[in-house]
Amino acid sequence: MKQNICYAQSGGVTAVINATAGAILTAARKSSAVDKVYAGKNGILGILQEELYETWHESNETVRALRHTPGGAFGSCRIKLPNPSENLAPYQRLLDVFRAHHIGSLLYNGGNDSADTSLKIAAAMKTLGGDINCIGIPKTIDNDLPATDCCPGFGSVAKYVAVSTAETTLDIAAMARTSTKVFILEVMGRHAGWIAAAAGLSNENNGPLMIIFPEVPFNPPAFIAALNKRIRAHGYAVVVVSEGAKNANGHFLTSSGDSDNFSHQQLGGVAPYIANLVKQNINVKCHWAVADYLQRSASHLVSATDLEQAEAVGTAAVALAASGATSVMPVIWRLCESPYQWEISTAPLKKIANRERKLPMSFISADKYFITPACRRYLAPLISGESYPTYQNGLPCFAELKNILTKKQLPAYTHC
Amino acid sequence: MKQNICYAQSGGVTAVINATAGAILTAARKSSAVDKVYAGKNGILGILQEELYETWHESNETVRALRHTPGGAFGSCRIKLPNPSENLAPYQRLLDVFRAHHIGSLLYNGGNDSADTSLKIAAAMKTLGGDINCIGIPKTIDNDLPATDCCPGFGSVAKYVAVSTAETTLDIAAMARTSTKVFILEVMGRHAGWIAAAAGLSNENNGPLMIIFPEVPFNPPAFIAALNKRIRAHGYAVVVVSEGAKNANGHFLTSSGDSDNFSHQQLGGVAPYIANLVKQNINVKCHWAVADYLQRSASHLVSATDLEQAEAVGTAAVALAASGATSVMPVIWRLCESPYQWEISTAPLKKIANRERKLPMSFISADKYFITPACRRYLAPLISGESYPTYQNGLPCFAELKNILTKKQLPAYTHC
Repeated sequence: MKQNICYAQSGGVTAVINATAGAILTAARKSSAVDKVYAGKNGILGILQEELYETWHESNETVRALRHTPGGAFGSCRIKLPNPSENLAPYQRLLDVFRAHHIGSLLYNGGNDSADTSLKIAAAMKTLGGDINCIGIPKTIDNDLPATDCCPGFGSVAKYVAVSTAETTLDIAAMARTSTKVFILEVMGRHAGWIAAAAGLSNENNGPLMIIFPEVPFNPPAFIAALNKRIRAHGYAVVVVSEGAKNANGHFLTSSGDSDNFSHQQLGGVAPYIANLVKQNINVKCHWAVADYLQRSASHLVSATDLEQAEAVGTAAVALAASGATSVMPVIWRLCESPYQWEISTAPLKKIANRERKLPMSFISADKYFITPACRRYLAPLISGESYPTYQNGLPCFAELKNILTKKQLPAYTHC
Repeated sequence: MKQNICYAQSGGVTAVINATAGAILTAARKSSAVDKVYAGKNGILGILQEELYETWHESNETVRALRHTPGGAFGSCRIKLPNPSENLAPYQRLLDVFRAHHIGSLLYNGGNDSADTSLKIAAAMKTLGGDINCIGIPKTIDNDLPATDCCPGFGSVAKYVAVSTAETTLDIAAMARTSTKVFILEVMGRHAGWIAAAAGLSNENNGPLMIIFPEVPFNPPAFIAALNKRIRAHGYAVVVVSEGAKNANGHFLTSSGDSDNFSHQQLGGVAPYIANLVKQNINVKCHWAVADYLQRSASHLVSATDLEQAEAVGTAAVALAASGATSVMPVIWRLCESPYQWEISTAPLKKIANRERKLPMSFISADKYFITPACRRYLAPLISGESYPTYQNGLPCFAELKNILTKKQLPAYTHC
């Protein structure tokens, strides 16, 4: 008998999360085991509130266009569910919604927090006797999920950072003689320096580039000395700094003071902090950029490898749902580094939820400001290949979804 | 008799200034009127110091690769020459260098300040009896040169801003329900809002986008009211702010306190200023990005129209030099708006030097935060078309020049 699937997007979006969504819709349309695919409006929040999109109204052409559409086509969310051992009510509500729409599987697409949410739902469904398969699907630009070689979304942001660093290095190289001598680029990566590390792909060792990793306590005098050395050698320097850079006490160098529903502090603004430090210590002109959302929504510059992997985990998730698997996540397994070969494998959610994979120290150079050859070998294949959107009048054509909400069967839910 | 040409790059670089350089080398190699092309190392500075690259060592393949190489391949500079009526010494030095290398034409590639430099050199050459043609070549992302319909370099930064705004709008649209509700993107444009205006191409009027132009005095309460209106209508808002935004007294909202050799204040940091203002007035989560060098070195996302025009002005400059013209600049003339047609024309440098063309008020909407249909008609063709670099291992292949300096014939110049 065919089952209905509910797909939802969660956490910070990526340039390729919609490619995963498109692959799920495509695989489900072809699958003999799947009937309808609903999509939660704004992740788990929409499911709780019985706001489900009927994806079958979207044409195949629209589904294909999701491949090069940034953002999250069904809306994302950042909300934390209670521990089911303390409060089962929201889980009972989820089960009611699943049952009202004959949904047999939840496909939840997100990062660490979302894997935790999926695992909690899986546990609660067991307690409640709900026969619902819970499949997590990896997605995070931070590349910090364990049990997978890499995370869909990361390869594209890595490519964006590597290409942007290469481009801006040529810019400052041209300006340095009479003008700017230090260019600072702030990139994302709350606790793990994977994104910052990707900048290293654009440069050789002993080049003008310095990387400030969150894994390495920031030491201002040592930084200034190393920066001076690069300026003397090249006439200029490029600094790529992770938003998650911390001082010797383990505090973020900068924080906006806000935090989200997972108690994560909102970061941003470390580039001007570094620029200020440079100006106070070296009398040179600085320019600084903060990539913020630019880096994770740059669907115009995706990695073709990343795009392919984002689709592969989506396709695999549908197969897992069809097979009746639960509490698992399709992951990427590296078969060979050179030539790069990979395949999809499966990992239990409990090995992924709430664990962060930091950049290993073996990937950080001895001077702490660059990547090692091992890191380069790991990262290089992930940014490989280009895949461009279709453009019309100079602008990319994005999928325009109808996003028709299904008729509610249940009373309103007012607890979130 | 064949002449030698000296080409030099000046001011802030663009994604396509090297395309102009490549077109000059290509045209000169084909021209029966041109023998050798020298390139000043770091603009006029290198010419004064007799640091001239012998461009004929660069292969045709390298010259072709300049098309998709950001930065300034021969180095740029920001230096101001004295008024020739007050101090002729540097101009005599230039003439000595030109004569030592049998140079008959100077092709100077830059913006307002560089047009001023070219004009001063032309005037001084006349006074000194030097038979040197001075040709300016337009280049500025700011699009603020008069006497040309647009400036090479602008179309590509406009495309970058329009595409990035479209992409990040989808990002925040996905996040807004439980997280970020305002995204702020700071773009360049010291006194003219052309770059900020380009963001308008990504949105319809009455959409979530607000643009803060330097031409409109910034009024915080009015801004907050208009922002609230957009958040209420769409659930989120995107703010694109020019680095040159000013308050009612005509002062920049933010300035780093530094200034360059032309007494221009170094700007940057208006995005966090706006974010702070939003947080103080509306209790919503903000994200902000500062595009800085990212926007002007994004050769991975050039406008094909801009690229073509950057090459056309280079080719035209060689023809002007060959014809013995002086104190002129090849400019872009719009023949027809729809379908867009343009041709190269010529304008006297004195109509360009030191004049800034601001965004006309007829291009700014009645509410002051958006563009008019006339502005859209002007901008749309300039971002049209895509042209991609060649990639290897996931990174763009940039031209690698030999940049061999010519043997000096003159005593060292120590005055700059």
